[in-house]
Amino acid sequence: MTKKLNVVPFVSVDNMMKLVLHLGVTRMMTEIADYIEADFKRWPLFDKTPRVASHSDVGVIELMPTSDGEMYGFKYVNGHPKNMKEGLQTVTAFGLLADVNTGYPILLTEMTILTALRTAAMSALAAKHLAPKGVKTMAMIGNGAQAEFQALAFQAICGIDTVRLYDIDPAATEKCVRNLAATGLRTVICRSPEEAVEGAGIITTCTADKQNATILTDNLVGAGVHINAVGGDCPGKTELHRDILLRSSIFVEYPPQTRIEGEIQQLEADHPVTELWQVMTGAVQGRTDARQITLFDSVGFAIEDFSALRYVHDRLKGTRFFDELDMIADPDDPRDLFGMLLRAKAAGQGPLATAC
Amino acid sequence: MTKKLNVVPFVSVDNMMKLVLHLGVTRMMTEIADYIEADFKRWPLFDKTPRVASHSDVGVIELMPTSDGEMYGFKYVNGHPKNMKEGLQTVTAFGLLADVNTGYPILLTEMTILTALRTAAMSALAAKHLAPKGVKTMAMIGNGAQAEFQALAFQAICGIDTVRLYDIDPAATEKCVRNLAATGLRTVICRSPEEAVEGAGIITTCTADKQNATILTDNLVGAGVHINAVGGDCPGKTELHRDILLRSSIFVEYPPQTRIEGEIQQLEADHPVTELWQVMTGAVQGRTDARQITLFDSVGFAIEDFSALRYVHDRLKGTRFFDELDMIADPDDPRDLFGMLLRAKAAGQGPLATAC
Repeated sequence: MTKKLNVVPFVSVDNMMKLVLHLGVTRMMTEIADYIEADFKRWPLFDKTPRVASHSDVGVIELMPTSDGEMYGFKYVNGHPKNMKEGLQTVTAFGLLADVNTGYPILLTEMTILTALRTAAMSALAAKHLAPKGVKTMAMIGNGAQAEFQALAFQAICGIDTVRLYDIDPAATEKCVRNLAATGLRTVICRSPEEAVEGAGIITTCTADKQNATILTDNLVGAGVHINAVGGDCPGKTELHRDILLRSSIFVEYPPQTRIEGEIQQLEADHPVTELWQVMTGAVQGRTDARQITLFDSVGFAIEDFSALRYVHDRLKGTRFFDELDMIADPDDPRDLFGMLLRAKAAGQGPLATAC
Repeated sequence: MTKKLNVVPFVSVDNMMKLVLHLGVTRMMTEIADYIEADFKRWPLFDKTPRVASHSDVGVIELMPTSDGEMYGFKYVNGHPKNMKEGLQTVTAFGLLADVNTGYPILLTEMTILTALRTAAMSALAAKHLAPKGVKTMAMIGNGAQAEFQALAFQAICGIDTVRLYDIDPAATEKCVRNLAATGLRTVICRSPEEAVEGAGIITTCTADKQNATILTDNLVGAGVHINAVGGDCPGKTELHRDILLRSSIFVEYPPQTRIEGEIQQLEADHPVTELWQVMTGAVQGRTDARQITLFDSVGFAIEDFSALRYVHDRLKGTRFFDELDMIADPDDPRDLFGMLLRAKAAGQGPLATAC
């Protein structure tokens, strides 16, 4: 994009919205799912570590780094359930991609919107491999900021044509119905989780601010269903009754992280789970029979953000949807950082060593 | 600085240079040393973790997070010794400060220049507590990008008036002499490490691209000297002969990190070391007699970057030395991220869900 050594391309929120509108939400999620699948298929290549979390009484701030040996990426993301009441986002994020060969950043971007896209892309990608074939109806329990993205990703990637919506706050459901009006999806407003799951082959749970809640009780989950559990994603935060887990074949991103953060934090540490990347490579079979309950215990892993960053980096080429950020000090002589300051002083004015 | 929710103040390289020239290098390092000392005195408050490193054949990319419970900071920093030959910086860095209460970033800044300032400030601060009183002469072995900052910090904070310079590359020493010409420091060009340490009460080693080198041999270190070992700062990279370590009282920032990265990686894992913060609080005595060799085994710890970020955040107030970065998605309704996209579409144009 540029060869100026000091400059890092930066995608602001405004430019990310322009990029999304330019490409289309659906196309972006479909293509991000392709990038994630390509990266999951080369899973053993990646430098993997559970996210680095800093917890406080009111929330968490996390760094999620990974590398494939050629590029390095990380995401900064917070989780503050109480923020919503204060008019702030529960989750905000930004991310960075760097060249492993030089250590120089090559992309800085907002990731609040991008995380919404990659989370839904990941959910639909997992369902493509796990859900029963021919499913047209999805129940969506929790109709917050992630809901529309989930609905559109499942429409594009899994062929869903109907979403059955439930939220404890009817206003959230109404917002969701309104936002999905022009998408070709049929939306059904439901007054209870029981009503939402009627006839649904896929159940998505995506609630935000409950601690060890039971969004889904055991009796609501029938044979053959695929569960996409998105909301339970940190220690002490789960959505499903433990009995559901015991009846399900459980698929996860990165076990060391999911055992801490996912629904399976309710189970023994050695409870068998399958790593999704192995389903994608074909090493392990996903769904084995029509009555099996499959569960994607989604927590979000650094490689998905890496894929999304890689995607944005590729798609930015030839567009105007970025600014150039003067972020890397670039002295003429790399050993002469101090001289760079002296020359700046000579060019302009101001004290240097003589200042005090 | 601003109350716009989507905006993060950003200090570019250009603005950092302007801030440095505005305040003065010497004043900034002196004040950053004060911030570091204040933070080291409340050490137990901090959330501490060794840096999160991603190694490749040619270098390392690291994230260094910490928090005091009110603010959260992290630094991104790379280390690529081979970069210099390609006209790139060996070390580049940027950093971020966030509000723990909301998880929202409050400052993004270049940190290549700032790291040079805080590293020198930390070295001089340690020497203030450990070096023999009244020392006027410092030997500086390694005259690269960090050298002038070290010299000025020791001048301001420890009262050094003479620096004896040695580098395997005479051009580096000449650059250093030239850059220090107007600072009031006397510079002496030396042709060997032996010559450099003559009459020096403080020895600073600050070389860049050696693997387990012996920059300082045992016979060069006389009784009563303070050693400021800056260059040995990652696994497999040391500067001092092991025998020097065995004769020294060793002071470190954060033992779990220094044992991996510092000079003491050459010693047994239980070799006694003193944590600098305890010297600063007065819990432990630093130098106990005039013939003692004190060694600051510097590797750079996240709290020093946190202090530097906190300093820049405070000093920016009322200045023009920052830009406003549109980095945080800020929908009118936090649950309606998708609606924000829809409204942007309505305001402008472009496909959304209908794109494919």
